[in-house]
This record gives sequence, C-alpha cells and structure tokens, in this order.
Amino acid sequence: MTSAAPRVNGARLLARLTELARIGGTAEGGVSRPAYGAADVEARETVRAWMREAGLSPVIDAAGNTIARRTGDDGNAASIMIGSHTDSVPDGGRFDGALGLLAAIEVAQTVAERGIALRHPLEVVNFQNEEGGIIGSRAMAGRLTSADLDLVAVSGFTIRDGIRALGGEPDCLTKARRAAGSIAAYIELHIEQGTVLEELGAQIGVVEGIVGIRYWEVTVDGEARHAGTTPMTSRHDALLTASRFVELVHDVVTSEPGAQVGTVGRLSVHPGAPNVVPGRVMLTLELRDIEEAKIERLYQRIAGEQFRLAERNGTSITLRPTHSVVPAPTDARLRAAIASAATALDLRSHPMPSGAGHDAQNMTVLGPSAMLFVPSVAGVSHSPYELTVDEDVVNGANVLLGAVTRVD
Amino acid sequence: MTSAAPRVNGARLLARLTELARIGGTAEGGVSRPAYGAADVEARETVRAWMREAGLSPVIDAAGNTIARRTGDDGNAASIMIGSHTDSVPDGGRFDGALGLLAAIEVAQTVAERGIALRHPLEVVNFQNEEGGIIGSRAMAGRLTSADLDLVAVSGFTIRDGIRALGGEPDCLTKARRAAGSIAAYIELHIEQGTVLEELGAQIGVVEGIVGIRYWEVTVDGEARHAGTTPMTSRHDALLTASRFVELVHDVVTSEPGAQVGTVGRLSVHPGAPNVVPGRVMLTLELRDIEEAKIERLYQRIAGEQFRLAERNGTSITLRPTHSVVPAPTDARLRAAIASAATALDLRSHPMPSGAGHDAQNMTVLGPSAMLFVPSVAGVSHSPYELTVDEDVVNGANVLLGAVTRVD
Repeated sequence: MTSAAPRVNGARLLARLTELARIGGTAEGGVSRPAYGAADVEARETVRAWMREAGLSPVIDAAGNTIARRTGDDGNAASIMIGSHTDSVPDGGRFDGALGLLAAIEVAQTVAERGIALRHPLEVVNFQNEEGGIIGSRAMAGRLTSADLDLVAVSGFTIRDGIRALGGEPDCLTKARRAAGSIAAYIELHIEQGTVLEELGAQIGVVEGIVGIRYWEVTVDGEARHAGTTPMTSRHDALLTASRFVELVHDVVTSEPGAQVGTVGRLSVHPGAPNVVPGRVMLTLELRDIEEAKIERLYQRIAGEQFRLAERNGTSITLRPTHSVVPAPTDARLRAAIASAATALDLRSHPMPSGAGHDAQNMTVLGPSAMLFVPSVAGVSHSPYELTVDEDVVNGANVLLGAVTRVD
Repeated sequence: MTSAAPRVNGARLLARLTELARIGGTAEGGVSRPAYGAADVEARETVRAWMREAGLSPVIDAAGNTIARRTGDDGNAASIMIGSHTDSVPDGGRFDGALGLLAAIEVAQTVAERGIALRHPLEVVNFQNEEGGIIGSRAMAGRLTSADLDLVAVSGFTIRDGIRALGGEPDCLTKARRAAGSIAAYIELHIEQGTVLEELGAQIGVVEGIVGIRYWEVTVDGEARHAGTTPMTSRHDALLTASRFVELVHDVVTSEPGAQVGTVGRLSVHPGAPNVVPGRVMLTLELRDIEEAKIERLYQRIAGEQFRLAERNGTSITLRPTHSVVPAPTDARLRAAIASAATALDLRSHPMPSGAGHDAQNMTVLGPSAMLFVPSVAGVSHSPYELTVDEDVVNGANVLLGAVTRVD
C-alpha cells in the first residue's frame, strides 16, 4: 500500500555509513573525528567522492563547508538544502551527523537515478565543525565573527587555521554568507540522541524547534576553615549552599509541565581537601526550552530563591550569564511535509523539541527550516555505543526523500 | 596576687618565635617548612641550639625526633615530656607547632635559671612531620609501620629518606619506641586553630581529648546523559543525589547537641561538562567526635538514609571506609593541673575537645597526656594569617610552666 512512495537504496546508504566509520574509527566501534584533524579532512574528501557519484558537483565555500549542487528545473527557484556534518566529538559515535549527511547524498542519488524531476535546485551540505559550536552554519548565516576565528578547537587548531585546512578562505568569510530568504527550505535528518521516540514506539520525530539555551557560571562564596576545629554552627560551607542550589534548580525546573530541562553539569570545590570546610564552589547552570519566556521565568524563580538559600548559612551566590542561544522554531509547512512523508511510508511520527543544538538553528534565519529525528537506541549519543538500527537509518532517508519531493 | 607563680621570660620566647619564622618564611608573613625539606632541617638545627642554651642535651632518636633532656632529682622517676613540632604545612603559619615547642624550651630554661627543683626528668621533644600524619610521635608509640616509610611526604621525600635527612635511622625504628608507662606525663601547648576561646573570652583551653575521626570515600553512580536530549524524568543525575547526601550529612550531624562535626570537603563530578548530566560523583566524608560511639551512631543514621535518598532518582551510593583515628582522651589529673595553673595566673580556662589531630594523641598510649590551647585570632590556621597575640603566647608558656611544676 505504500509502494507508491519512492525509496532510497538502503543497502548503499548502510554500506557508506559503515565505510565512513572506518575514518577515525575507534576500538570500541565509534569514531573520533574532531573538526580540522586528519580524520575530519579525510572524511570530508571521501564524502565529496560520494557526492560526485550521486551526480552532484561539490565545492568548498569560504567557511570550509562542502556544498554539492544539482540544478533544478526552474532556473529562478531558490535551493532546497539538505545535509548535516561529518565531524564528531572525540570518542563519539558513528551516526551523529554522518547519518544526516549520507542520507542527504542518498536522496540526491535516488533523485538522479530515478529521474525524479525537481523544480528547485538541490544542495547537499556538509557543514564544518558542528560539534565545536555549529561553526560552518554560523558562517553561512553571517553569525561568525572574526574574534571567533581565534578560538581553539578540540583538535588544537584555531578555527581560522582549521578553515584553511579544509580548503576555505577564513579572511573572506562573507563569501560564504547566504542572504536571508535565499533558501527555499533546509531539512536535516539527525539521530534523536534521547529516548523519547524509543519510549513512544515512534519511528520519526518531527522537530518543533531547537531549544534555546541560557548558560550561567555560578559562584558560591563561603569560608574555608579547618574541619576539625570549626563547629557546625560557625561554618559558612560553600558546598552545603551549592548542594541546596542544585536541588533548587531541580525543584524549580520540574515544578511545571513541559519539556524544559535544567542542568548543573560541572562543579568544583575549593580548596577541595577532605579536612577543610569548602570555602568556594564554582558550578555551571544551563536552562533549555523551546520558549524563551519559559527559560526567563524559570531563571527568575531560581534567582529569586537563591538569596534566601545562601543566607541560611552566611554564604553568597553569584550568577554570571555567559552565553545564550535563542530558540529556533521550525517551519510549519516543512513539518507537515515530514509528517506526511512518514505517514505515506506507514511510519509513526511524533512532534518533539530538539534539546540539542544543530546547524538547522542557524538555517532558520535564512529560510524555512526543519529537522526530523530517528531513534537512538537507549538514547546513547556522543559515545562509541551510539546506535541507530538499520531499519531506522533507512526509514529516515526515505522520509527525507519524501519530504523533499513534497516541499518541491 | 598572682606574683607567687613563677613566670617565663616572655620577651625571649617572643623573640625566638620571630626568629624561627624567618626560616622558611613567606612573603605574607607565614612559614613554609614541610617536613624533611631544607627549611625543616634548618629549623630543627636552630631549635637544638636554643635547647642547649636552655641547659638541655638534645639528641636525635631513630625516628628523627629531637629529644632534649634535663636530669631530675629522683633517679628512678619517669620523664615529664613537653614539646610540639617545627614542621608546617606548605604556606602555613608561624604559631602552629612552633609556639608549643619554643614555650617548652622556655619552660626548661626558666626552670634552669630559677633553680626550680624538679623530681622528674624533663624532656623537651620536637616531633618530626606532625603535619604529614603525626609521624614522629607514631614512631615513638610504636605505631609506624615499615610500609608507612614508603609514603611520600609533601616535600617529595619518602618518610624513610626524610628520617635519614633529619639524622634518624629508619631501619632501626624500634629504637625510637618508648614503652607504655615510661612517661610520667606528656603536656603540649598548641594554638587552638578555632574560635571557641575567642568567642568565650577565655585565655586557656583545657583539652578534654583529641577527637576520633572516621573517613569514607563516597561514590554516587548515576548515568551520564546529554543535557539537551534527556528529559528531567529520565535522568539519573549523580550530582543531584550527591547534593542531597551533603544535606543529609549536615542534617544528621546537627540533629543532636554536642561538638561533633561532619564534613564533605572534596567532591568531583564526572564527566563534568556543562551540557552533560553528571554520571558519577566522588566525594569524601569525615565525622569527628570525642566519643567513638557517637561517630558510629551518626554514621549509622547517614548509612540508613542514603539508600532511600539514592532511590529517589535511580542512582546508587557506596561508602567505602578509608582510615580512622580513635579518640584520645586526656588525663583528668593533668587537666586539673592545667586549670589550676591558669587560675593561679588569673586566667580564665575552658574545657574543650581538640578537633584537630596532634602528637599528643599518640602519647596517650605511653602515659597520662594533656594539651592546653591558646586563642587563634579569628580561628585562622594553616595560613600565613594565623595569629596568636603576644599576651596569649606568654600566657600559654606560663600555664605550661605552672602545669609542669604541679604535675611534678
């Protein structure tokens, strides 16, 4: 009954995923391809060869992104862009980024082989350094500053030198910039990196938007004192206050319904000796939600409680905002196209936010953008044990193909 | 009205304290004399010269302690031993240890100069490596193992090599051992390192005993997950559990009256990235009290609650005992002598536990032992800003002299 929908060559897609995983492959079965390192450069070259096999013409833009184009039937139409990235975190998994990019190539190759007519040009993009701050798409959206070029990536290269290593021109970044409205649609397939789909038994996540994130560096100041000679009542224990703060964050964030999250992921204690009452604790706070207003409301509640909390034992808390990412809602028409493509393939789809950042969030400023997710086994990601089963890999590519033809 | 009590030469004592502080002196006015380093060796040599000026005959025992003896009138009497230590923590203060030792020398010199008759021999001891684990007194009490000799001290020397550097014989440690009952009394003057005396306006602390300490290494296991993609309800956040554990320790320890303390001084979070839900937290717990039974009772209450606490978010807590120090009660007769000596000098004394460890705790197994404290300004210790005012320095030495004559 679903035979009418065109299908990609699933075997070829799975074979390319396996072959790409050899580049920077680790003993545990994952990949280590931090941006700008040798494995990253090699993977990007391999992918360009596959782009050519798919009948595309890859070029490297000034920001070091690879963009492979197929002409559309309408010479005046803006492009439909699909893609993802091939760089990884150190000791990461085989699917994060790679799946979306290889599926995009597979979609283009299927379009070519089946002679599917597309009015819009189709562009397949391999963004550079997604894991280190969605750098390539930031450049495309005009959001990368020259100061950013001096930042040092995980591989040890500055972003400037990294762009050069990938064949870009870091001094001519504006050449890589696309104008707002210049893209007809951007659609990215990605693994979920969570367990929402798995728990629901759904095959396709239709991403409602990429959450906004606000970060703070939090400092708790107390008084470092000898643990043996300082009575409990004379202590100003910074770790006790920090512990109450961690609980406060949890309590506030879970006090209202919704998908918002709040995390204290890093915490250090000074001086950090077993026999010294902690004098200072530094920790990080991040809040994520699809609605900026909700993040602000949660923050205000935490900020409003913190003073009372620090006062209890004569300590103080300072929250310093560091950086933030605004929520990036996806396009309703593209979401409908993804959901419809899934239905046509008898797949169950589910609307959900993306809690992780993706290149798509930069693309939302250039044109209508959307993402679809496929399940991650046990939600494991950024790990060699990251896994998306073959069926879900192929499902994702087929839904991407269906979404592209619908949007076109 | 107190003119009858003999007094030490306060000016000489203060001058020696100042001179000793030059050895290993730091820019901030503290001292850095970690055991076995050059400054430690030099300080011990300087102190031996002052022992000779006081009419004593210093020798170095097999454990590297300096012991300086004065013959008593009764050839059969066991020694009264007084003293402390000259090693310091790195970047420590001028009074910790130094005060007690120089006051002991001053007492001996006063006894000699005033022709005060003492029935017992008087021994002034400069224990080695107090800060690194009350090593010298442990050797004297037969509590130092040959395995301990391989431990590396802060100065970088092993204890074995350190003992050699001080002129001891690490392979003949039993020569340094004293028999139980071989000491008539051990009395040590020390700075309080806390604020109890200051808050009470008392000049002399009569130490009831040195607290017992039990240490645990605590591990909280949860699950490291992506902070963006893991809903709050799916998290097994090890830091949230650890935070609740820190509060539990505080609540249990403060739930009964008394001077017991409980401290979480070190805590580390893994993997420790702002955008990753903490998967593991390791922390230290120590409980101190003068009563072993109370420590055990507090521990049982913490251990009894921890499971319920970890269960709340699907994590686990493991407490691994590392080492412990048994409480060392002081001798009632010696305590009375100290209190009486204080009263005779019109000084206000106050009974209190010692929350910090001291060489006296090893001496309690060799014979009746006691300690007296003088106030530390603001309780600051193990810091260049450690301070005991001149008047309290001299008061301490005078009370030590009075206690020795009373005990004799």
